[in-house]
Amino acid sequence: MTVKIGVIGTGAIGRDHARRINQVLAGGRITALSDVNRASAEAVRDSIAPDAEVFATGEELIASAHVDAVLVTSWGATHEQYVLAAIAGGKPCFCEKPLATTAEGAKRIVDAEVAFGRRLVQVGFMRRYDAGYVALKQAVETRTGAPVMVHAAHRNPSVPEAYTTPMAIHDTLIHEIDVFRWLLDDDYVSARVTFPRSCARTHAKLRDPQIVTLTTAKGVVINTEIFVNCHYGYDIQCEVVGEDGVARLPEPMAVRMRLNAQLQNPILTDWKDRFVASYDVELQDFLKAAAAGTATGPTSWDGYMAAVAADACVAAQENEGEAIAITYPARPALYV
Amino acid sequence: MTVKIGVIGTGAIGRDHARRINQVLAGGRITALSDVNRASAEAVRDSIAPDAEVFATGEELIASAHVDAVLVTSWGATHEQYVLAAIAGGKPCFCEKPLATTAEGAKRIVDAEVAFGRRLVQVGFMRRYDAGYVALKQAVETRTGAPVMVHAAHRNPSVPEAYTTPMAIHDTLIHEIDVFRWLLDDDYVSARVTFPRSCARTHAKLRDPQIVTLTTAKGVVINTEIFVNCHYGYDIQCEVVGEDGVARLPEPMAVRMRLNAQLQNPILTDWKDRFVASYDVELQDFLKAAAAGTATGPTSWDGYMAAVAADACVAAQENEGEAIAITYPARPALYV
Amino acid sequence: MTVKIGVIGTGAIGRDHARRINQVLAGGRITALSDVNRASAEAVRDSIAPDAEVFATGEELIASAHVDAVLVTSWGATHEQYVLAAIAGGKPCFCEKPLATTAEGAKRIVDAEVAFGRRLVQVGFMRRYDAGYVALKQAVETRTGAPVMVHAAHRNPSVPEAYTTPMAIHDTLIHEIDVFRWLLDDDYVSARVTFPRSCARTHAKLRDPQIVTLTTAKGVVINTEIFVNCHYGYDIQCEVVGEDGVARLPEPMAVRMRLNAQLQNPILTDWKDRFVASYDVELQDFLKAAAAGTATGPTSWDGYMAAVAADACVAAQENEGEAIAITYPARPALYV
Amino acid sequence: MTVKIGVIGTGAIGRDHARRINQVLAGGRITALSDVNRASAEAVRDSIAPDAEVFATGEELIASAHVDAVLVTSWGATHEQYVLAAIAGGKPCFCEKPLATTAEGAKRIVDAEVAFGRRLVQVGFMRRYDAGYVALKQAVETRTGAPVMVHAAHRNPSVPEAYTTPMAIHDTLIHEIDVFRWLLDDDYVSARVTFPRSCARTHAKLRDPQIVTLTTAKGVVINTEIFVNCHYGYDIQCEVVGEDGVARLPEPMAVRMRLNAQLQNPILTDWKDRFVASYDVELQDFLKAAAAGTATGPTSWDGYMAAVAADACVAAQENEGEAIAITYPARPALYV
Repeated sequence: MTVKIGVIGTGAIGRDHARRINQVLAGGRITALSDVNRASAEAVRDSIAPDAEVFATGEELIASAHVDAVLVTSWGATHEQYVLAAIAGGKPCFCEKPLATTAEGAKRIVDAEVAFGRRLVQVGFMRRYDAGYVALKQAVETRTGAPVMVHAAHRNPSVPEAYTTPMAIHDTLIHEIDVFRWLLDDDYVSARVTFPRSCARTHAKLRDPQIVTLTTAKGVVINTEIFVNCHYGYDIQCEVVGEDGVARLPEPMAVRMRLNAQLQNPILTDWKDRFVASYDVELQDFLKAAAAGTATGPTSWDGYMAAVAADACVAAQENEGEAIAITYPARPALYV
Repeated sequence: MTVKIGVIGTGAIGRDHARRINQVLAGGRITALSDVNRASAEAVRDSIAPDAEVFATGEELIASAHVDAVLVTSWGATHEQYVLAAIAGGKPCFCEKPLATTAEGAKRIVDAEVAFGRRLVQVGFMRRYDAGYVALKQAVETRTGAPVMVHAAHRNPSVPEAYTTPMAIHDTLIHEIDVFRWLLDDDYVSARVTFPRSCARTHAKLRDPQIVTLTTAKGVVINTEIFVNCHYGYDIQCEVVGEDGVARLPEPMAVRMRLNAQLQNPILTDWKDRFVASYDVELQDFLKAAAAGTATGPTSWDGYMAAVAADACVAAQENEGEAIAITYPARPALYV
Repeated sequence: MTVKIGVIGTGAIGRDHARRINQVLAGGRITALSDVNRASAEAVRDSIAPDAEVFATGEELIASAHVDAVLVTSWGATHEQYVLAAIAGGKPCFCEKPLATTAEGAKRIVDAEVAFGRRLVQVGFMRRYDAGYVALKQAVETRTGAPVMVHAAHRNPSVPEAYTTPMAIHDTLIHEIDVFRWLLDDDYVSARVTFPRSCARTHAKLRDPQIVTLTTAKGVVINTEIFVNCHYGYDIQCEVVGEDGVARLPEPMAVRMRLNAQLQNPILTDWKDRFVASYDVELQDFLKAAAAGTATGPTSWDGYMAAVAADACVAAQENEGEAIAITYPARPALYV
Repeated sequence: MTVKIGVIGTGAIGRDHARRINQVLAGGRITALSDVNRASAEAVRDSIAPDAEVFATGEELIASAHVDAVLVTSWGATHEQYVLAAIAGGKPCFCEKPLATTAEGAKRIVDAEVAFGRRLVQVGFMRRYDAGYVALKQAVETRTGAPVMVHAAHRNPSVPEAYTTPMAIHDTLIHEIDVFRWLLDDDYVSARVTFPRSCARTHAKLRDPQIVTLTTAKGVVINTEIFVNCHYGYDIQCEVVGEDGVARLPEPMAVRMRLNAQLQNPILTDWKDRFVASYDVELQDFLKAAAAGTATGPTSWDGYMAAVAADACVAAQENEGEAIAITYPARPALYV
């Protein structure tokens, strides 16, 4: 069976996902497109998805009989309404981050999905599909003994002036927030932020770097350095310390060279290259579940929990050095 | 456009490629199957390719109007006849190694394709599609300066007693023989084989390990260790030494662990895991070219040149220590 | 000139330093020995230092005309009195850690040395002489840009039941406390301790692991994991993050092996092997300065500052999660 | 006991060894110096060895009652005569490479030492004292199983025009020739040389790079790349392949950095830095044995065997592609 896919939002990521569905992956076909800028949707139709119908609104697209499942890749502020509409229509829905712009919004999606009674939503936390993290999780579950600590870093060469201190949580740390819950099979109970002196390259509205300390229900302490003006490259580091040993996230594949009195290999500089292969895998997973009328992978609940933790991290930024408690309701049975 | 694919030979690799076409990759669909063991073809149809018709012979499959392109994954001794039939039918054809069981057979395919006047054949030298080799080739072309030497190793944990000394060339080294021609953009001029003492784990009919020295038209010397009872793992090593520096094939992705007084990471033990990702890429490349009625990637000429070099290597085994010249006709314009 | 050395305290470390002076290093000779257990001193004389006179007390040894300089390697509680006696006698003095058992005691030594007006004391912080740390310091000063953060770990396979939570500071972290002041050319302003859940292998009186966060006058934040029941090995990790890049303490030299499906190299398990080479270097430095009637390397002031910081870290353990301020008087001109 | 040392030849290496004896190592003292340029010997006396007497000739120095043992660090052509004189005088003698400029000369030293009946000569093959090679030898003897192959490289950034093809053997490969005999506890039976095209940076009188293939009595095949215009650094590589696994010579200690989109660490460029620590260890070994009136470490026989193998390698250069047999008399009992 070929799953008929509608894409809401045909900007960079929407176009790229449309390309994956039509040109890379088996099992799906783009049949519908929609964008606030209709010309953008038409351009994607013309270059990538010749079979697709262009709809004036996301809601019309979702309602189409020629749409089995939906990709929500529109502007973040519109995610909630489209995901709710997809749930209302009983159609599997892949939603890029964030699931909603507020924890409350994410909770409304959780409630709607729980009310519907079957999983329909996959959130685009692609790191869970990265081969390195998958191998790390296996090492943690089979080799290192129970985790006690995580030392992590999320480094980016530079950010524009519009990037502010809380964005280091909502746009950057959000990936670690989700992936560590999955990696450790655990939930957060508190967050604390420590600020070293800010680096010379940062801007007026951004304290950079910062260290976020998350503690979990099982007692793991996770220190994550966020350094978005680190200059040298885009670099994701993660070391898990367990009862019996330590495991480290693999570095991206690179050719080791001996040149000019240096043993060297390239470090990526663009975040888009770091997890590019995982986008294929997450969408393949989505297509497979959608063919069965449901969803898999990161859940609405995961999206909600990430939002709750992110809010606590921002509060921790505003109360430097204080431990901010992270609280949330009981996990619905749908997500156990 | 969806390319309609017929598969001739539905053993392990044929079944796996059928799965790729129908379940992993965009752009193709299995419409026809054939195997000397009809039940095998039917089993693949039932489990993987419900739309496929099962044909009694490869020739009938090739002739079918519902077949746009062909995968030849049958027993090696039959490759030549099916590839020739596909060329005669003007249909793009992906042929697993070997292209033919003799250099003369491979040459007949080259001649037929040249006579046809358009590329139709892709040989299954998948290493050219491995991300590590691709990155290494880029490093060699842009960073190390012109190559002067290659140091390589092809190690396998163990082989059965049926594996004989010449099979170390035809079944094992054949991958290096092809990939180094591509990596260096060069041709071989001589081969020499050196035998260390054989290891304790080898069998009566196999001298193991051995070192094959290939020299190229541009003057590069390539030493490749073949050690198929190396015990510790399946390990492919390649270091290129250029005028300005050295580049090394990346190790497979692995989680580095600190356990039991060791800094360690796993080494693969099964060759099937080493280049598994490259099969997807090579078939995607085939589908794309087949949609345009032609072929890309490793050519019939490459298959022929590999056969010629392999024959020289076997002669070098039989004349230990002697340099055996490697000669071949001029490259047809179709392959320039 | 050959410096005549007296050793006070002939236990394991005293005997080992005596061996260094007499059998490894140029420029010194053991001429005097003393120990509360006279038989111990005599045994060292008989096996290692045949020219040495055995003295009943450290004070008598210091007063001897055949002693140019003194090694204080006695029980920690006696260090202060012998170092003060050496200063009073105007003799260069190498004192193993701790300089004194209290910050006040260390301060008395500082005051005595300042009053004497010339450096006479070298504290046995041997990491400053480790080739790895020396190379790291050079990298930090010339390549990484100004430091912003340090991520460190001090891991030990196991400790006996007598090892308590505060000993993780006084006996273990004390090395990092000193070496980071030197590495960063900086002073501490606060300490905070975070406790993950304790690991299953720890004992009743020890919370293990723990994470100590030190902040410096220049605004650097240093997170050091202390994990003394880490099981897998003795492992010292240190990564410095600067404005322009990151530098990492080299791993100890090890042979990389491919064995049993693993790429592996040994990790040390005994702390005594980790910095063994640096003992030679620090004593060579002591001998050279002693020949000139003075001292070099880690100062009394460094010993005092380490004691002050350690006390704050213990207070931080007792007030989990709170930042404890670290205060100290102005640095005397003698130590600038 | 302090061994009284006379140094014959006070050029760079003689001066450096004198410094080691007087300023670094315990157990020796420079009491005598000699050089064809008397002013050179006097300068070493004035700056490093104030107790030393300057002699007009090496023979007078050897004969002095104030000389217990001798360092021969003069011009290579004079080594043989001084070593023979030291043997005649019954004095332990450390001789820098080469032991003699011809295999015949080295054999005369062997014969003299055998006639004397006690080991008196240590040849300055310092790699045997390098911590990396020592660890590699231990790995080969305890972990990898019996060796089957060695893959090695000796790379140098550049050489002057006076450096000719045979010097690649006598001045460069000579270190591998000795260290592999020791590493493998084996002897050579043949040598073959393969020349890739010469690199663009080489000179008229030097074919560079080259690959020397040595086979041993136990059946091990050793391929060593010599590339003395490799441009990027001074780099010594050695991988031993055994029945059970592979072990690799450790890289020199280096700080790994992340800078400018590269994960990098420095590679040495000057050969003098690569094994500098091993000079201390070899001389300490010499002093210890000399105190007992004998010698240890690399023997005259090792020096002779290296000369025999080197001559075969040069013959192999002159007969490219041919295997040149390496023959030698039975090993005298003194060296078993």
